[in-house]
Amino acid sequence: MALDSKQVLDTREFKVVGTRVLRPDGVDKVTGKARFGADITAPGMLVGLVLRSPHAHARIKSIDTSAAEAMDGVHAVVTAADFAPIEDDDFTADVLDNCMARDKALYDGHAVAAVAASSNHIAKKALKAIKIDYEVLDHVTDVDEAIKPGAPILHEGGGNESVPEGSSKNIMARYEFGHGDVEAGLKNADRVLERSYKTEATHQGYIEPHACLAQMGPDGQADLWCCTQGHYMVRNTCAAILGLDQGQLRVTASEIGGGFGGKTTVFLEPVALMLAKKSSRPVKMVMTRSEVLRATGPTASSSVDIRIGMTKDGQITAASAELRYQGGAYAGSPVEFGSMSAFAPYDLENVQTIGWDIVTNRPKQAAYRAPGAPMAAFAVESAIDELAKGFDLDPLEVRLKNAAREGTVASYGPTYPAIGLEATLRTAKDHPHWTAPLGENQGRGVACGFWFNFGGDTCVSLNITPDGTVTVSEGNPDIGGSRASMSMMAAEELGIPYEKVRTIVADTGSLGQNEVTDGSRVTFAVGLATIEAARAAKREMCKRAAMVWGIEPEAVEWKDGAAHPAGPNAGTHPPMSLAEIAEIASNTGGPIAGHHEANPEGAGVSFATHMVDTEVDPDTGAVKILRYTVFQDAGKAVHPDYVEGQFQGGAVQGIGWALNEEYIYGEDGILQNAGFLDYRIPVASDLPMIDTVILEIPNPGHPYGVRGVGETSIVPPLAAIANSVSAASGVRMQDLPMSPPKVLKAIQDQ
Amino acid sequence: MALDSKQVLDTREFKVVGTRVLRPDGVDKVTGKARFGADITAPGMLVGLVLRSPHAHARIKSIDTSAAEAMDGVHAVVTAADFAPIEDDDFTADVLDNCMARDKALYDGHAVAAVAASSNHIAKKALKAIKIDYEVLDHVTDVDEAIKPGAPILHEGGGNESVPEGSSKNIMARYEFGHGDVEAGLKNADRVLERSYKTEATHQGYIEPHACLAQMGPDGQADLWCCTQGHYMVRNTCAAILGLDQGQLRVTASEIGGGFGGKTTVFLEPVALMLAKKSSRPVKMVMTRSEVLRATGPTASSSVDIRIGMTKDGQITAASAELRYQGGAYAGSPVEFGSMSAFAPYDLENVQTIGWDIVTNRPKQAAYRAPGAPMAAFAVESAIDELAKGFDLDPLEVRLKNAAREGTVASYGPTYPAIGLEATLRTAKDHPHWTAPLGENQGRGVACGFWFNFGGDTCVSLNITPDGTVTVSEGNPDIGGSRASMSMMAAEELGIPYEKVRTIVADTGSLGQNEVTDGSRVTFAVGLATIEAARAAKREMCKRAAMVWGIEPEAVEWKDGAAHPAGPNAGTHPPMSLAEIAEIASNTGGPIAGHHEANPEGAGVSFATHMVDTEVDPDTGAVKILRYTVFQDAGKAVHPDYVEGQFQGGAVQGIGWALNEEYIYGEDGILQNAGFLDYRIPVASDLPMIDTVILEIPNPGHPYGVRGVGETSIVPPLAAIANSVSAASGVRMQDLPMSPPKVLKAIQDQ
Repeated sequence: MALDSKQVLDTREFKVVGTRVLRPDGVDKVTGKARFGADITAPGMLVGLVLRSPHAHARIKSIDTSAAEAMDGVHAVVTAADFAPIEDDDFTADVLDNCMARDKALYDGHAVAAVAASSNHIAKKALKAIKIDYEVLDHVTDVDEAIKPGAPILHEGGGNESVPEGSSKNIMARYEFGHGDVEAGLKNADRVLERSYKTEATHQGYIEPHACLAQMGPDGQADLWCCTQGHYMVRNTCAAILGLDQGQLRVTASEIGGGFGGKTTVFLEPVALMLAKKSSRPVKMVMTRSEVLRATGPTASSSVDIRIGMTKDGQITAASAELRYQGGAYAGSPVEFGSMSAFAPYDLENVQTIGWDIVTNRPKQAAYRAPGAPMAAFAVESAIDELAKGFDLDPLEVRLKNAAREGTVASYGPTYPAIGLEATLRTAKDHPHWTAPLGENQGRGVACGFWFNFGGDTCVSLNITPDGTVTVSEGNPDIGGSRASMSMMAAEELGIPYEKVRTIVADTGSLGQNEVTDGSRVTFAVGLATIEAARAAKREMCKRAAMVWGIEPEAVEWKDGAAHPAGPNAGTHPPMSLAEIAEIASNTGGPIAGHHEANPEGAGVSFATHMVDTEVDPDTGAVKILRYTVFQDAGKAVHPDYVEGQFQGGAVQGIGWALNEEYIYGEDGILQNAGFLDYRIPVASDLPMIDTVILEIPNPGHPYGVRGVGETSIVPPLAAIANSVSAASGVRMQDLPMSPPKVLKAIQDQ
Repeated sequence: MALDSKQVLDTREFKVVGTRVLRPDGVDKVTGKARFGADITAPGMLVGLVLRSPHAHARIKSIDTSAAEAMDGVHAVVTAADFAPIEDDDFTADVLDNCMARDKALYDGHAVAAVAASSNHIAKKALKAIKIDYEVLDHVTDVDEAIKPGAPILHEGGGNESVPEGSSKNIMARYEFGHGDVEAGLKNADRVLERSYKTEATHQGYIEPHACLAQMGPDGQADLWCCTQGHYMVRNTCAAILGLDQGQLRVTASEIGGGFGGKTTVFLEPVALMLAKKSSRPVKMVMTRSEVLRATGPTASSSVDIRIGMTKDGQITAASAELRYQGGAYAGSPVEFGSMSAFAPYDLENVQTIGWDIVTNRPKQAAYRAPGAPMAAFAVESAIDELAKGFDLDPLEVRLKNAAREGTVASYGPTYPAIGLEATLRTAKDHPHWTAPLGENQGRGVACGFWFNFGGDTCVSLNITPDGTVTVSEGNPDIGGSRASMSMMAAEELGIPYEKVRTIVADTGSLGQNEVTDGSRVTFAVGLATIEAARAAKREMCKRAAMVWGIEPEAVEWKDGAAHPAGPNAGTHPPMSLAEIAEIASNTGGPIAGHHEANPEGAGVSFATHMVDTEVDPDTGAVKILRYTVFQDAGKAVHPDYVEGQFQGGAVQGIGWALNEEYIYGEDGILQNAGFLDYRIPVASDLPMIDTVILEIPNPGHPYGVRGVGETSIVPPLAAIANSVSAASGVRMQDLPMSPPKVLKAIQDQ
């Protein structure tokens, strides 16, 4: 069956884009030369350490820092009292309170004080010398418990105006999306499935702990080096917290050892700046792994109720979901994205989602790859699978029957342009994996996933060096190959080899505002800006050639890396290559550059279908991943290695989330597994090679058809694995993780 | 007497430019937080050290590095053999040979090998283990001796095509400038003075020794942090020497602890990169003071013959000079600039200068503040003084009578636009210093000075942050206040307070090509680019306001830091401030920036008149500076403190050159005073407060009338002090420095 006319693969003949060039950060990373957050030093710098709450919920009655301050080698002690309260911006006020608790410690590990000392040893002693008088309060860490009457309340003020009166004060916001009439639609179904699903919080598990080095003068001029996904975000947030002008704080992003969304906010940075300000010395702070797990931002745990009506031939007549996500101790769980994305893969006449943003005594959540979407997809894709199997229908065919396509009005509002969901489903159905034989206790599952993809503020400068090589300056930390991708798109556009371009991540003093590296925005938005900057440079180079030739700039065209006389002047002069034009730039007006600033629309939504085979050990409940294939639309894969890596990485993180990873809190509200020995991330020996199939349905919003590819791949695995486990063992797991004891109990209960 | 009509002071009402705002680097520098060249570190870095020739001139017959290479902790040894010879670029070939001698060691201290080791201790031991078989050759260090028949020859190939056949092979080039008929002109003089003058080499004496940290991968991608006046020059030179693409080498300039021209070339950087490449580790190199004096670039020593004819009423009828400068072991002394500048202050009908570029067994010279001009001015201004005094004429009046002015055809070719020489002379004549009483053994001298000032390749990016503050990104290390000046010009242009702007020095990956910080180009050229970038940002902001107001962008004007509806729309909307436009930038098209790339003409020549009182101790020959006043045209003084600082700093360096500083070579050709105990730089107790008078004759080539101010102030002191010593003691010193033994001998000989 032919694809939709606009869903053809891009057949344009790229020379660089689509090839597998050497990655520019490779040598530095494998030889240890890459400078990560903790690798930056400054003469005279101090060590900064944080004192953290040992209680899940406690009022801070007083803090006595005098003994610590009096210690030799202690240069500064900071508490919330050092920061002016933020009155007009609830979001930033919460970020500050999370960085340094003011009235209450809201979770185990919440920062309550910090010191800067001349050595790690002295800083540790100083932390012990700080005396805090706590009034321990009741706590709650489960999302459903948190909204029951009588649950401990975190914020007496409660939520925002979207929350109905009389609701639990732990509900911070309510969201609703959808269209049609769900109740009426359900009446047309042959079966209405109602199910509830729960997922536990998981951590992004980045290898590199948070680290920064801060420097700040009494003149309000400050410098910060840190490991982050968005140094402009760090600048703007820290400036708001410290009362600085954004322009006076220069932030440089280090190389980053993983982020996955977890480095899109600040934890240490404002504290380090305040310590630097008070001590008048550079201050370096590096988290331990335990601090990372206890006190940075894992994702939300969730509880989701689903109702889906389906006819016996697989048509979904109506669907609704109620989603409860806890975002830790502050408002801002990703339940809005969960509510928007839940039914985004389907073309539904009647659909409704309601999301509840709930607080508990846990660390404030941070984004984690497609934030909010995997939990919603776990519920929806499990339910669809159960319905399809109940009617003995092919789960891929059921999805194809209901699949969103170009022109579908999405459940969250917009009408889709050309999209790739159908292509992933059809490709999956034709793939040998779908018909491969399975053994005893083995099963196969499929599930779909969706992510929005973002645009956002973006600045790129492209400069031509005198020898005709090119530097591209962009403002987004490279978390997944963006330096390679930008160099490739610049080379493609300019018609020169990839090796002639070097892309760097500029600091905030060198380039304008850039949105965080998140939402799978960078290859799209920064790529678009890079292409536009290259086009501006080409126009300038044509102008210089025209000047030399004495013809009108409009009569010059750029092709194959050179300016050519065109139109009536065609052939009158031999072409001038980029290097030839660069060589004479100084004498034809000065250096040649191209710049582009934008906040581009049209990021292009992304869809994937995952297929997984598992074997369930009936004696232990252990689930083994036998085979895994990702089918995803990349729009255009700029560097296929990186795209495959994103597909594989997302799938693996989803596998961990599905099978083993979880935040385990004791009765006392203390995190019991704050280390990689007890927090069980999948390792290489747990996994088969993840197979990938890249589809290319061009995004009409990008000159090369690029879509973000980083997020979607974590969305389907939770349900795909649950569906596979169901096929293998007959038990349908509705509560993640599907760890051996839980699966074994389900089998035994069966 | 009124000034020329175009020489009026700029009366434009600036709000920021011309004020004395806080300097942005002040806090960091006084608190020790500024990161200079040696303050950068990288994990796993090695220490790089250089082995230097103990001979003034020696053939390198062989180098055995095997013992050093075999030592534990030694990671790399580098000699010239590691670098491919440079065939097509004599200048860069010399730079490389100077960084690492290939066939011959050409001076005491010439680098012959280098090691990278895990500690300084091991590196030192490794240097001792390198065995070099030298064939010691005869040497020559004096500029006049070097061109005598039979003198040792440095380069058998001799000089370039400008050198007449049969000349000494130590002459590398010949220059000639002038117009009219000198011999005919001299015939009209009442007196023709013929004199010869000599100056010794002096060092810039910057506080911070050269330092760098290099990192380089086998993929050709490299990073370098260093203390330099021009990191783009470092990039381009090192790329040529290492065979890298310019775009693949990212160079970041550290804070700089003085340069004065001496950091406009490379000494360590290519070696550090090669050590990093061979060891695959970051390598840090820091010079000792002795290395700085022996083996970086002091200025040339010189020998100048002068003939000037003057009528008894002070009219110069003709003038000629023959200048011999030695530039150390390689071609490139500043004799061309000396020949061009010698008579630049005067309107002469008949003038000729001939310059000879000579090599000796000394370190390759580097630029030193107004390179080449002070030695020429020493000769010319001494001779004019002697002639004026011979005729009993006022030396200021004689200079006024012959002064160059708007329309004068300069001795080196161009016709001057509005210039400030006359203004400095008239202001000096009216100043109380000119008529202040003098005591016994005291005398007063005056002299004029000139410098060209440069433009050069320049790139500036200006970005508006979301909170409405501004960052300016420029590519020139700040050696004299350019960050403050750029922030001031940006603030002036945008109509916002200075405190809302922060200027940073971008690395070579973040911004396009910039000429070295030299020639007093930065406040002019980078200032011009900053103003143009700000104007581009204003146009964009007007466009955004027009979009909000729904009117044409042309109907919006920028004033007082805000967009205003103008023309027929005037008053239809309240103005939108920069901060208000910045706040909505994301929703009106994205971030707002302004960029400018140029190679501007019109730098605007600079003139000064200096006046100095000295007291000469007849018993010891010691010369004491009693009073010193600098009169100089700044075009427009952007930050008067910095301008005064430049005037004072140049004068003080000139005082050192005149009185005490000198390179002393023994008979063996070894530098005898390679340390600050023996190389006698003036200290605070040697000096009175240097008074300054800033004149402002606007440079028509700059939007604010700015001229460079950094160089000219070192040009007059040598002659002004010699003239003053002559007045005080009756002896006319023609051989610098005027150190006590030399002055005493002259007094005794009298």
